[in-house]
Amino acid sequence: MSTSTHDHDREEGLSFQPKFDAAGLVTCVATDVATGDVLMVAHMNDEALRKTIATGNAWYFSRSRNALWRKGESSGQTQRVVEMRMDCDQDAVWIRVEQIGAACHTGRRSCFYRKVESAAGDVSLSFVDAERLFDPEKIYRK
Amino acid sequence: MSTSTHDHDREEGLSFQPKFDAAGLVTCVATDVATGDVLMVAHMNDEALRKTIATGNAWYFSRSRNALWRKGESSGQTQRVVEMRMDCDQDAVWIRVEQIGAACHTGRRSCFYRKVESAAGDVSLSFVDAERLFDPEKIYRK
Repeated sequence: MSTSTHDHDREEGLSFQPKFDAAGLVTCVATDVATGDVLMVAHMNDEALRKTIATGNAWYFSRSRNALWRKGESSGQTQRVVEMRMDCDQDAVWIRVEQIGAACHTGRRSCFYRKVESAAGDVSLSFVDAERLFDPEKIYRK
Repeated sequence: MSTSTHDHDREEGLSFQPKFDAAGLVTCVATDVATGDVLMVAHMNDEALRKTIATGNAWYFSRSRNALWRKGESSGQTQRVVEMRMDCDQDAVWIRVEQIGAACHTGRRSCFYRKVESAAGDVSLSFVDAERLFDPEKIYRK
């Protein structure tokens, strides 16, 4: 099969063919099914994808810890997957989730709690929707 | 400055400090400001980020073409950025955009035009919101 036929299949076909990167990962975007807000961007390896599909709860692969991880296993802040979609070239996954509490390890609902602002060429951030739902120091005790 | 102080600054501070990967890129998620749908997942290098902020139109960096790229420069399907947010560790950007026409190179509104389905352990895709708004063969002529 030529590369272009293969690419065409992956884009227009109905077979599930995740395109993992050199590290064996796809990018996953989780949005809040209630608000449409992006909660987090993370990664899944083949096992995380399979477990997410099989269980209906989000599993990820942590690049920093080099480990499979069930969302909420430490914090209790789980994600129930309502829908999963693949993108055109199948290297990214979008899950719409029911988020229990906070998606972010900082204790916020979403990891995207700062807005980019630009004034006279200076770029800075400002907090938005940044209240904490839990205290990470209490939740992630060593 | 210790790594942990630096990490804390990046997560809790208001300075814009994108954390580029080894290839000089951050991940960007574009959602439709009208519907909340994820339109695409792509990458930005420093220049793409700066141009997006300065112009209010989305610029990306194509890994396959190794080139900076203004969204819509070939297709006319531009993205006006209504809001840009950074995630906790500043390696991902979320932009809410007004999308002209289709975000996907296949001619669809969103790159996420297939849903993942699982039946008796078999995983497959099904089309959803998959109508084409343009014919890519006409738009991307060689």
